[in-house]
Amino acid sequence: MNVPVPVTDPDDPRLADYTGLTDVALRRRREPADGLFMAEGDKVIRRALDAGYPMRSMLLTSRWAEAMADVAAATGAPVYLVDEALAEHVTGYHVHRGALAAMQRTPLPPPAGLLATARRLVVLEAVNDHTNIGAVFRGAAALGMDGVLLTPDCADPLYRRSVKVSMGTVFSLPYARLPHGPGHLDAVREAGFRLLALTPDPRARDIREVAAEEAGARTALLLGAEGNGLSARALAAADVRVRIPMAHGVDSLNVAAAAAVAFFALAEPRPEP
Amino acid sequence: MNVPVPVTDPDDPRLADYTGLTDVALRRRREPADGLFMAEGDKVIRRALDAGYPMRSMLLTSRWAEAMADVAAATGAPVYLVDEALAEHVTGYHVHRGALAAMQRTPLPPPAGLLATARRLVVLEAVNDHTNIGAVFRGAAALGMDGVLLTPDCADPLYRRSVKVSMGTVFSLPYARLPHGPGHLDAVREAGFRLLALTPDPRARDIREVAAEEAGARTALLLGAEGNGLSARALAAADVRVRIPMAHGVDSLNVAAAAAVAFFALAEPRPEP
Repeated sequence: MNVPVPVTDPDDPRLADYTGLTDVALRRRREPADGLFMAEGDKVIRRALDAGYPMRSMLLTSRWAEAMADVAAATGAPVYLVDEALAEHVTGYHVHRGALAAMQRTPLPPPAGLLATARRLVVLEAVNDHTNIGAVFRGAAALGMDGVLLTPDCADPLYRRSVKVSMGTVFSLPYARLPHGPGHLDAVREAGFRLLALTPDPRARDIREVAAEEAGARTALLLGAEGNGLSARALAAADVRVRIPMAHGVDSLNVAAAAAVAFFALAEPRPEP
Repeated sequence: MNVPVPVTDPDDPRLADYTGLTDVALRRRREPADGLFMAEGDKVIRRALDAGYPMRSMLLTSRWAEAMADVAAATGAPVYLVDEALAEHVTGYHVHRGALAAMQRTPLPPPAGLLATARRLVVLEAVNDHTNIGAVFRGAAALGMDGVLLTPDCADPLYRRSVKVSMGTVFSLPYARLPHGPGHLDAVREAGFRLLALTPDPRARDIREVAAEEAGARTALLLGAEGNGLSARALAAADVRVRIPMAHGVDSLNVAAAAAVAFFALAEPRPEP
């Protein structure tokens, strides 16, 4: 029986994993350095566990202790019971989902595994917004992409906001980090992928035409950040530049919508469930 | 010459249009009632004017007076010059884009015009989130839909947040309100549109198959709110229920991404620029 431990002192060192959750700058440094990420809410916590991430501890208010008792029993991780005021004092915000878990990161696999098995990859370059990372993962998982490769300057898919926006798909869709520097796409090409760069450039080819040519091929779709788009280097490395045809003089979609449309356009017919 | 009028009293009645902009509940009641909407920032103000909305007044900080002088001259509307502290005091937030305009709403046309001319319509049911309304308009404009019909319980496309997220497309893409109550879709059907209801229901038909059948037809795509989706009444009124095929066990996309994918799937080939 894993008995929750009441904690009343906000400076209790056992709560250290949960401090300053609203300080994005602090947390984005600290969480990877400490091998830590936060899962918030019943569903997300269970999805993180199902994906194989070990639990370090849970922080619960009393009304959540019972609902999470099975998780506490299954993991054996310490459970700290706090009142709502203390939870807010420690984390910096009103924890309206009532349950927080500090999860242990696992070593990120090298890209080789994905490069060996995937047919449809997303390559994100310098996408440093947690909301956009989460939204791209959700769309990629929903629309049949097999995995995500991220340049080192992309935001963390396991950051709390990314996890939430992704609806937990950051746990289920495989991803890996590409190496720094020039030639970072070489391994993708050498693994047999055609590199498609998504751009609003009207000189690029209509993604519908290119998608038809990609049937049966292994394809990596390169996406850049909102605003800046892909780097000149990524555009130069691509085999083909593709665009989503635009109407009414609109020049772009937001990253999440553009990514979803591109994933849909590239999706291979799948057996229906 | 339209000379800016310095204002230093936050209670000056000439600033009444600009008070309490962060109070969403207040503004969503007051703006339609007062025939008013807010345009924020140089680009959005100009787009609203280009779309034919009359200007009631502008509220500018000094460093924006010169940049907006041509707009002031062209409209003849009063320009109130305030310092940043006063702007923040009146509006409730830091006006980082430096220029605000109170614009006059124009009478919304009845749906008949759109129903007579459009080939691809979006019908939004009870989408009451301003961000989602803005995102749907941006996607609809970019991806070639001809206009939007909104049930009376949809959020206001001219609310500040909707305008911003839409990138100003709420000004350029025609829209109209449907009547209240049962039979609200009758006029759409009677105008010759096939009604397609977008749903995550796995029993619905793959939108790719249905889109192929819609080539040359007049099509209205019904979208519901995040979470609740379309009402039973709307689903029953539809000619066909369509779904975006989902992978990896994901059950849905967010409204903006789902809408963008559906618009893309239904887009008719257009002459390239």
